[in-house]
Amino acid sequence: MAALNTDLYELTMAAGFFVAGKAEEIATFELSVRRLPANRNFLIAAGLEQAVEYLSGLRFEKDEIDYLRSLSQFSRVPDEFFRYLSGLRFRGDVFAMPEGTPVFPGEPLLIVRGPLIEAQIVETFLLSTIAFQTTIASKAARCVIAAQGRSIVEFGSRRAHSSGAGPLAARAAYLSGCTGTSNAEAGLKYGIPVFGTAAHSWTMAFQTEEQSFRSLQRLLGENTIYLVDTYDTLEGARLAAQLGPPILGVRLDSGDLVTYSRQVRQILDEAGLRTTQIMVTNDLNEARIAHLLSSGAPIDSFGVGTELSTSADAPALSAVYKLVELQAGQSHIYTAKYSDNKATLPGAKQVYRFPDRDVMALQNECSGYSEADPLLRPVLDKGKPVTSYPFLKELRENAMSAIQELPSDLRRIDQACQRRVDLSPQLRSLGDDLRNSRQLVTK
Amino acid sequence: MAALNTDLYELTMAAGFFVAGKAEEIATFELSVRRLPANRNFLIAAGLEQAVEYLSGLRFEKDEIDYLRSLSQFSRVPDEFFRYLSGLRFRGDVFAMPEGTPVFPGEPLLIVRGPLIEAQIVETFLLSTIAFQTTIASKAARCVIAAQGRSIVEFGSRRAHSSGAGPLAARAAYLSGCTGTSNAEAGLKYGIPVFGTAAHSWTMAFQTEEQSFRSLQRLLGENTIYLVDTYDTLEGARLAAQLGPPILGVRLDSGDLVTYSRQVRQILDEAGLRTTQIMVTNDLNEARIAHLLSSGAPIDSFGVGTELSTSADAPALSAVYKLVELQAGQSHIYTAKYSDNKATLPGAKQVYRFPDRDVMALQNECSGYSEADPLLRPVLDKGKPVTSYPFLKELRENAMSAIQELPSDLRRIDQACQRRVDLSPQLRSLGDDLRNSRQLVTK
Repeated sequence: MAALNTDLYELTMAAGFFVAGKAEEIATFELSVRRLPANRNFLIAAGLEQAVEYLSGLRFEKDEIDYLRSLSQFSRVPDEFFRYLSGLRFRGDVFAMPEGTPVFPGEPLLIVRGPLIEAQIVETFLLSTIAFQTTIASKAARCVIAAQGRSIVEFGSRRAHSSGAGPLAARAAYLSGCTGTSNAEAGLKYGIPVFGTAAHSWTMAFQTEEQSFRSLQRLLGENTIYLVDTYDTLEGARLAAQLGPPILGVRLDSGDLVTYSRQVRQILDEAGLRTTQIMVTNDLNEARIAHLLSSGAPIDSFGVGTELSTSADAPALSAVYKLVELQAGQSHIYTAKYSDNKATLPGAKQVYRFPDRDVMALQNECSGYSEADPLLRPVLDKGKPVTSYPFLKELRENAMSAIQELPSDLRRIDQACQRRVDLSPQLRSLGDDLRNSRQLVTK
Repeated sequence: MAALNTDLYELTMAAGFFVAGKAEEIATFELSVRRLPANRNFLIAAGLEQAVEYLSGLRFEKDEIDYLRSLSQFSRVPDEFFRYLSGLRFRGDVFAMPEGTPVFPGEPLLIVRGPLIEAQIVETFLLSTIAFQTTIASKAARCVIAAQGRSIVEFGSRRAHSSGAGPLAARAAYLSGCTGTSNAEAGLKYGIPVFGTAAHSWTMAFQTEEQSFRSLQRLLGENTIYLVDTYDTLEGARLAAQLGPPILGVRLDSGDLVTYSRQVRQILDEAGLRTTQIMVTNDLNEARIAHLLSSGAPIDSFGVGTELSTSADAPALSAVYKLVELQAGQSHIYTAKYSDNKATLPGAKQVYRFPDRDVMALQNECSGYSEADPLLRPVLDKGKPVTSYPFLKELRENAMSAIQELPSDLRRIDQACQRRVDLSPQLRSLGDDLRNSRQLVTK
């Protein structure tokens, strides 16, 4: 039912455009983020693969069309529209920043150019899909930076916003450099490494903690990680040390992780288990990870759950999808809105990245920015993929390099820093001209 | 692929329980919320219908089992386990609070009692499904309280955490008293009233605002709501007034909504459009709604998006799923964990609600609470529904009454208030006994 999974007003507008004879006008919409949340110096673009899958499979089922017919909002709409809907497929062009690209406010992550109705009704799905994964990838990048090369595993499926969001959060977190996820479906679907051994219920389901640890070791061998805090962290750690190899590590999930990790390290070391790892979990985020490491806690890896899968400090982005151009027969108009504090810039854009700044220019502008790579690249051509979609692993490597190459001030997690984003003179003057005239007909 | 959509450790534990001969032990798990987020005095239980659907349809597909076989964590697991998985269905009993019930920290929303492996592996899905909808329903209840009888429409699909979360957020918001949603799929799937007329792109797609308004009026008749702020709010409102009936209302989406709503009300009234409604949107939440109304803004309805569909101030709950009992042959043990600040109470529980307090008692306790209704009721019996699932509309009416009947201090949105939740003497002494002995074998 993907096509109906949109805001109703997309569909009333579709009917209105159809009735007004505007179905075949060619619209250009841009998806961008208005402002950065408080604790973000950059975002990491993500979710494009799912957006492309959606656009490629877009269609209305019969029950969806029957439902629309039944609504009072559609009582004046002619039958032709519903026939049109049943044959509707997405035939537009899409340009986008590759997943893993750092992105800044106002810069389009995605541009859709196609028949007005098709380009309009996909707004809601594209916004939720791209904004959600971008939210998570951006949070994950901060956690990865905080961990200074130590491993971060995404553990947040149980706190994700519905079961469907879990694997997608895992995907976005992996894109930004997390080592893997606890979500098994994400492992199968996206090829992400999966981690996890046992919960407190495992310990509690045996008559003694020792029985539970011995059973886990028999099951997992060198993959064994004991969760040691069910009853008493240090007793649990001593038990793990006493059982000896094979063992991969122990996990701490409560209490003062600085003190416990030191004490547990000592217990393991004294038993000769110097390579046995200490993993910690328990409401971690980038600030707590940074604090643990700056306190000298001997931690080898972090499991980050809730804060990562919900981006708890900034769970939503001000992502918008705005009409910037419209072509009707011979007339080509640029469009923008001028609502208080919510004005937009007209015209399809391109973004050029320089070491110290980005420049936004018009897409069709013969710019002087040829020394910089354009960030937006063709993805769909009349609804068909331009190339096969890159592997997630490859996107992840690019993302990690791109984050590494950002100026160090932007990569700070404890201090705000604003990227300079310039407008090309042509884009600026188009915006000014349009504000005076409302809608600018060109050509 | 629902069965694999879980944390890997659920499945390694399943394998371990199988190998240890514990597959047929009967476990009881409780799903509850540890603490309330900062701005919540109560939660509204939601998501049970989707949880029941999941449990009823639980099964592993061949590709999911093949995937598990391929993982190093399963290299020592015998073939019998994978055969067992392919035949696994959920045959447990479920007790739950009906959707729409106000719930407080520590109180089980859901109890699962069934074969250990089945009851264990459903943890992740149940947590994400119930915690997410409960999060949204709880936020929605606050918005509805703030609106003092005015209508709230859920508009947040575009900011929901993935496209799948949008309809579920709409469902949870409706449960708590919202009037409807913008999400068309939620309308079809859950029978929720749907709303929405046009976006800024509608206005921008016509040569003039007037053309766009006239086309909308022709399309929607008495359902017409003009979005008036694309270029200039007051000009837009004057245009709407000038076009006259049929008109349902105007929507304001930017700027100072107190001032604009007053000015627009005057424009409409002077044109004789006294019944024409004013709807407002623009990053609303319960505090802003309360502020608008206390400022005397003449607003008839509110569209709430991001803050509602992500519960932006509290996007996650500390929801947990804990083993409380385990029955193996003749031995019946109560279980709990004692991790720092994360201790749990043993034994399956029942919750009794009195006007001024709740009492948590053991489920099997012959309590003296017969004058109060037990909140947890049987939902599944050996995997089969006990009754047909109630209609959402009916659950919504019950939810709205239950919220209305809460003590007025709890219903305040600007002040914290804690519900008294007592433990029965038997529950308290079981907890104390167990803490001393780790695991208490009874019977």
